[in-house]
Amino acid sequence: MDTRFMALALSLGRRGQGNCWPNPAVGCVIVKDGCIVGRGWTQPGGRPHAEPMALAQAGEQARGATVYVTLEPCSHQGQTPPCVQALIEAGVARVVAAIEDSDPRVAGQGFEMLRRHGIEVNAGVMADQAARDHAGFFFKTEQGRPLVTLKLATSFDGRIATGTGESKWITGPQARRTVHAMRARHDAVMVGAGTVRADDPSLTVRDMGVDRQPHRVVVSRHLDLPLMSQLARTARDVPLWLCHGAGADVERLRAWEGLGATLVPCGVRGVQLNPVDVLQQLGQVGMTRVFCEGGGALAASLLANDLVDELIGFTAGVAIGAEGLPGIGALGLGRLAEAPRFDLVETRNLGGDVMHRWTRKLR
Amino acid sequence: MDTRFMALALSLGRRGQGNCWPNPAVGCVIVKDGCIVGRGWTQPGGRPHAEPMALAQAGEQARGATVYVTLEPCSHQGQTPPCVQALIEAGVARVVAAIEDSDPRVAGQGFEMLRRHGIEVNAGVMADQAARDHAGFFFKTEQGRPLVTLKLATSFDGRIATGTGESKWITGPQARRTVHAMRARHDAVMVGAGTVRADDPSLTVRDMGVDRQPHRVVVSRHLDLPLMSQLARTARDVPLWLCHGAGADVERLRAWEGLGATLVPCGVRGVQLNPVDVLQQLGQVGMTRVFCEGGGALAASLLANDLVDELIGFTAGVAIGAEGLPGIGALGLGRLAEAPRFDLVETRNLGGDVMHRWTRKLR
Repeated sequence: MDTRFMALALSLGRRGQGNCWPNPAVGCVIVKDGCIVGRGWTQPGGRPHAEPMALAQAGEQARGATVYVTLEPCSHQGQTPPCVQALIEAGVARVVAAIEDSDPRVAGQGFEMLRRHGIEVNAGVMADQAARDHAGFFFKTEQGRPLVTLKLATSFDGRIATGTGESKWITGPQARRTVHAMRARHDAVMVGAGTVRADDPSLTVRDMGVDRQPHRVVVSRHLDLPLMSQLARTARDVPLWLCHGAGADVERLRAWEGLGATLVPCGVRGVQLNPVDVLQQLGQVGMTRVFCEGGGALAASLLANDLVDELIGFTAGVAIGAEGLPGIGALGLGRLAEAPRFDLVETRNLGGDVMHRWTRKLR
Repeated sequence: MDTRFMALALSLGRRGQGNCWPNPAVGCVIVKDGCIVGRGWTQPGGRPHAEPMALAQAGEQARGATVYVTLEPCSHQGQTPPCVQALIEAGVARVVAAIEDSDPRVAGQGFEMLRRHGIEVNAGVMADQAARDHAGFFFKTEQGRPLVTLKLATSFDGRIATGTGESKWITGPQARRTVHAMRARHDAVMVGAGTVRADDPSLTVRDMGVDRQPHRVVVSRHLDLPLMSQLARTARDVPLWLCHGAGADVERLRAWEGLGATLVPCGVRGVQLNPVDVLQQLGQVGMTRVFCEGGGALAASLLANDLVDELIGFTAGVAIGAEGLPGIGALGLGRLAEAPRFDLVETRNLGGDVMHRWTRKLR
């Protein structure tokens, strides 16, 4: 029974993914006498939290009820009063939580406070799924960087464009639509400069009825991006963050700032921006989930630095051949044993393309 | 009902794939009063055919029975008397056939003869599946070349080895075992010279309990293959066919002949052996199904000449990067629209690797 209600709470929680950073996307279900009397999830922008949403729906029915929540309720005074306090005041009898919060301001104290007020606490129900759902939030809290999903849509032979740069379209409409849904579940969409120059993408979520767009992040050491481009044209409408190195041309920096972009100076390592620093900068402003769509150089830089947490492939039934642009650039591997490896989560026929999803072992 | 028995006949017929060339791998089920009284399939080497096998099992019960057969029964005197005659003599009442034989010596005459002897004939039951199962035989009959299945086991990014040539192992044991099962269903396993030099493969079917090994075919214009190799050592045990060009060194030709290999002189086009001619040579000796396992140059040569009928990918969750050896060599494409395209048949998790199977539209 606990598992059934927690599964519902988890699925409600995932509605907030991409919408509520820097806060975790939590889901909450309140059950009284076997009936669901309240449901809630973290709201856009991260407030209100899931618990007060569900409590408001439950009203007086919350008294003596069981609360299913996908993350330990917060115990610290933030911009809102702590959820623990709200649960105590509502007089709930029992709290079932999927996983402890790793935020040092909570980290078990939420459970402790509930117990001290006579509320029964069961923690660890569906903890594995919760760990996956909250992985981005945990990464940010513990490592200061967001979770990185790397998506590559390639030909059968791993190419993202022909030798002459043609890439529209390798995969079909259903795969491309799925990519938009995936973008919507992330805080930011990130690409390298080469992809901007080659594809002139807008990197927005289209035809999904979303209210909030993910931030767009471009990683470009020299900021050599076309000022006549989709990104430039839309920089005031949808946040555009440009990660650049110290040597980038000052005129260019000013021009992009003038267009409405946010400049993010990052450290350089070798000839590239240091991807560790790029992600730390995004983590510092609170991002929890970043969706990287290539190109090959940025993908290689993330993989070589062990920064890819989830890997998503869309493989089309088309052969482009060795002149094509590789989906993953040079990795500088010495031995096959050193190559980054991933565990298969699922594979599916998506409108005639193969979608395959892989993951690094997460917390 | 017809479909259920035909599905069984088709699955029996597939048992012969790889075992009965130059003959088609046919299955046959004989049904009397709703009970199966005989089952048969084309035997190793192509004889006896499926129908006499099933008739022998049915004995007297064949009289008045319905015969389900996956291909039009043969009407010509070959090394065995025609199956049509056997069916007539057995006194069967009805023949349900999946598809007409395209062999000009049969091509409808089998049905015609049966009807003339008062036997009811229903043709075209599960014809699509039969067309797929017999595609190799039809290719050989109509185009003079075998069906080509191209299999590539690659990293996530389409590489078959690291830059230093390491390829053991990119995919896991279950994928590799499946490859052996696939080899067993083909008349020959074919690779390019680069693969022989890099991997020293034996190209046999192992741990599957098969009685007959597929022929091994190596495509090597100059025949520059190591004489100290698995293939050389086993050339007397399992047929080894070497497709080479006119310019190959005579000493080498003699050495390989001395080891027991069969030399197959083929035409040259550009710098490579002409893949059309290579396949015609294999078709001429009766091969119906060839399983090509790369490497990149041979795969590209087949794809560029529109000679790949089925495409099978095994994709591992490992990133090798752009220095790695590409699974498909240069194709010389001008436009993306010219790239060879395939339809997805299935995708599956195979012990942690993605298996994906594609097909060109077949007859």
